[in-house]
Amino acid sequence: MEEGHNEPVLARLHHLMALREQVETLGQTGPWVPAADWRDADTHLELLLDVPGVDPESLALHEDGQQVTVSGERPGPAQLLRAERPSGPFSRTFTFPEAVCPNSGQAHLGGGVLTVRFEKKCPTIDVESEEAAP
Amino acid sequence: MEEGHNEPVLARLHHLMALREQVETLGQTGPWVPAADWRDADTHLELLLDVPGVDPESLALHEDGQQVTVSGERPGPAQLLRAERPSGPFSRTFTFPEAVCPNSGQAHLGGGVLTVRFEKKCPTIDVESEEAAP
Repeated sequence: MEEGHNEPVLARLHHLMALREQVETLGQTGPWVPAADWRDADTHLELLLDVPGVDPESLALHEDGQQVTVSGERPGPAQLLRAERPSGPFSRTFTFPEAVCPNSGQAHLGGGVLTVRFEKKCPTIDVESEEAAP
Repeated sequence: MEEGHNEPVLARLHHLMALREQVETLGQTGPWVPAADWRDADTHLELLLDVPGVDPESLALHEDGQQVTVSGERPGPAQLLRAERPSGPFSRTFTFPEAVCPNSGQAHLGGGVLTVRFEKKCPTIDVESEEAAP
């Protein structure tokens, strides 16, 4: 619970960085950048990605040891009068914040949020060998 | 189909304005700003709002002749390592792009997108009375 104190500030910083990334891609015809969180779920790491309105069939996940890439596509609605919601294809690559077991990713899509759970390679264990040694 | 040509440019402009609004609210402890589109659906106007991960029970809609306000809340996940996804309460007020019938809003939540359909006050009708008159 103690480590949660800096979360609002960190969240805003990371959000600002994501916004900057979005502003930078605005001038291009390139992809949109869905916002993402990494969560420490004890034995697992969770990647949370906002993908509202994304076609579930279009979602793809690719892991390679150090990184995971998520891609997909959101169809753009026709006859728009005012448009803020980005559409089209996206692809984002994330470096794992901690080492994970290869190909352990389990994806779940619910309420427009994609959650991918990865098994941590080295679960945190309280090692008391030094104290236990005579 | 022809009127769709300017949509990517308009979409990017509106998206940029929404990003600016988000950047401006970053310094505050205030709400996040879900991206929204207005769509012309012939006899109806549709408001599309990205609300991934928002608690459906928290969503509320308020109409008053010229405007509609949508509010809700997204719970923030605990134990975040890296955070970009905004959380907490939001409230956005939109001016109707065209006149709508009072209290005609019908909301539907699917895939993290809230769609609210409003009946237009004056559906477009081809009036041929001038040509038909002798």
